[in-house]
Amino acid sequence: MGTVSRTAARREALRTTAAERGLDAVLVTNLLNVRYLTGFTGSNGALLVRTDGVDILGTDGRYTTQAGIQAPDVELLIDRGTVPALAREAVRRGAGRIGFESHDVTVDGLAQLERVLADATSRSAPELTSVRQAVEAQRAIKDDDEIEALRRACAVADQALAELAAEGALRPGRTELEVGRELDARMLTLGAEAVSFETIVAAGANSAIPHHRPDATVLRDGDFLKLDFGATVDGYHSDMTRTLVLGHAADWQREIYALVAASQAAGRAALAVGADVAAVDSASRSVIADAGHGDHFSHGLGHGVGLEIHEAPGIGPLGTGSLAAGMAVTVEPGVYLPGRGGVRIEDTLIVTADAPELLTLTSKELLVL
Amino acid sequence: MGTVSRTAARREALRTTAAERGLDAVLVTNLLNVRYLTGFTGSNGALLVRTDGVDILGTDGRYTTQAGIQAPDVELLIDRGTVPALAREAVRRGAGRIGFESHDVTVDGLAQLERVLADATSRSAPELTSVRQAVEAQRAIKDDDEIEALRRACAVADQALAELAAEGALRPGRTELEVGRELDARMLTLGAEAVSFETIVAAGANSAIPHHRPDATVLRDGDFLKLDFGATVDGYHSDMTRTLVLGHAADWQREIYALVAASQAAGRAALAVGADVAAVDSASRSVIADAGHGDHFSHGLGHGVGLEIHEAPGIGPLGTGSLAAGMAVTVEPGVYLPGRGGVRIEDTLIVTADAPELLTLTSKELLVL
Repeated sequence: MGTVSRTAARREALRTTAAERGLDAVLVTNLLNVRYLTGFTGSNGALLVRTDGVDILGTDGRYTTQAGIQAPDVELLIDRGTVPALAREAVRRGAGRIGFESHDVTVDGLAQLERVLADATSRSAPELTSVRQAVEAQRAIKDDDEIEALRRACAVADQALAELAAEGALRPGRTELEVGRELDARMLTLGAEAVSFETIVAAGANSAIPHHRPDATVLRDGDFLKLDFGATVDGYHSDMTRTLVLGHAADWQREIYALVAASQAAGRAALAVGADVAAVDSASRSVIADAGHGDHFSHGLGHGVGLEIHEAPGIGPLGTGSLAAGMAVTVEPGVYLPGRGGVRIEDTLIVTADAPELLTLTSKELLVL
Repeated sequence: MGTVSRTAARREALRTTAAERGLDAVLVTNLLNVRYLTGFTGSNGALLVRTDGVDILGTDGRYTTQAGIQAPDVELLIDRGTVPALAREAVRRGAGRIGFESHDVTVDGLAQLERVLADATSRSAPELTSVRQAVEAQRAIKDDDEIEALRRACAVADQALAELAAEGALRPGRTELEVGRELDARMLTLGAEAVSFETIVAAGANSAIPHHRPDATVLRDGDFLKLDFGATVDGYHSDMTRTLVLGHAADWQREIYALVAASQAAGRAALAVGADVAAVDSASRSVIADAGHGDHFSHGLGHGVGLEIHEAPGIGPLGTGSLAAGMAVTVEPGVYLPGRGGVRIEDTLIVTADAPELLTLTSKELLVL
């Protein structure tokens, strides 16, 4: 199915939600939501989804051509004041109840919107109602095009790591920064349009810092080397962590690696349609807690991934809600021993009616390089 | 001057603004503003600047170590609910009037903040007042540390382009995407922590699209090749556009190149302390308009650049305000002939009491490769 019909189907789902809530139109201002609903990738855009009628994409003159190509099945409104212009257009076409994204619109933005609506009509101004995260809720369930983009993003990350490992780039004497930059550059060379987030390269004691920023630390023999990185392809983010050992693995390293691997496998096994997210977290976390390392696993188990590196659903001890088929999530338990080192193992997977589909295919055996 | 005293000086300036406005504290939620005021680079953080007392940086447990290192001269408050926790702490320490960033806080965020403040005290809840873009106004004037970071970011971009040109990477037969990815990878290799924005590589007729996204278009002999790209170093963004010709330049190409170069020189010459931004735009634009190409220059002349790729001041026909010493701005006129090709020439410069300091040093002579 081509992009156009995909995005039309996504807008249709939002239109249904809007109609159910008694809205005449929804003003989508979150730029990723606009991209999701139209295919438009410019840096300025907003979308008016109308309950009865053609949808209107607003952007400015820089993007006239691009918007026409990427979103051929919506009307275009070219105006430097994109959101006010769309709001005026909604009024002009008779919208009386307009939904907006209250998690995206700022306090100043809402004040401006209210002024514009009051000025645009001699009748009483249209009513503004939050649609909450209606589009984000749709985005949590990936369609086939999205899953394919995630698959390719994960493949780029897999291949980049495999090539660096094969070339001997992960060896004592190099710095975290050097390794991180090579990993980033390799992902770009392999077709990533960007890296998914600031790559984490953490050697030795630094591996005990969950989100260590790579620095001039030199990799040494016997170090854990924790790599948390991802590639972006067609806007979709991959996310993978692997922890390996340089030279020779000590017993304590093998022990916590095996523990985290068992925890991660339990987490993956718990990914099922209908599973409560807190129960998924618990399935993985309990393995680590039972081994006495509960205090050394200081973050949630995972998160949804897609057009954003962190999106719905959150998978943690305090999470609510349950998994559904088509959700793309990470499973990433860790054990961090301050001052010594830490292990995290993370995959990106798709929840399905059967076993989850694993997208990050790099081996999870303990790799000693 | 070290980072700590720089960030302390920046907080002191905000404290003065807050006191002038009768506020007891300012809750800074914009993450770049938090970085600017503290040095903290984590992905979650907010800052409470108090009119009398120590400032408090809020973040979550992932960043305890990093925040302590990067921002040693503020108190730390570790809490998953960063902003609500800081708001409660403000109340606990007696703040009665709290400033917030109404251009950053969402409608939902303000509602949450109001609930938290009402719950945190048995007296009447503190008053929330917008500080507008007080921190952004500070950020528009760069200090020496910022200028040095911009200088290095520009140098990375200069060097990446020079190396690719010297290696023959910019030649007929290659695709826009290949060139863009090499440019990105080279900037990372040369020390950029990221690219400043999605690199524009536009060949032939695509060069007439101001913000063309690189695609599989093959570079051909006689093409304009427009490259708009930048590197990020220590969070600061460089921004440069060069347009060159492959193989042999036709007369019409030399003509519009010379026109844009003259326009760009006029724009640079107009960068002076106290100059009105609309007048700066006009100084450059009039050169193009006088040559009959006014309709082919469809965007503003430039923008401020720093921790964001686009920040204050905007330099365009409708801009207001004037330039001040220490502002970092781009000057980037263009002439775009639909279906044929276009030229843009862009530098990043610092406004000074004397001539502006040019940070992007790549030659602006027409390069025929």
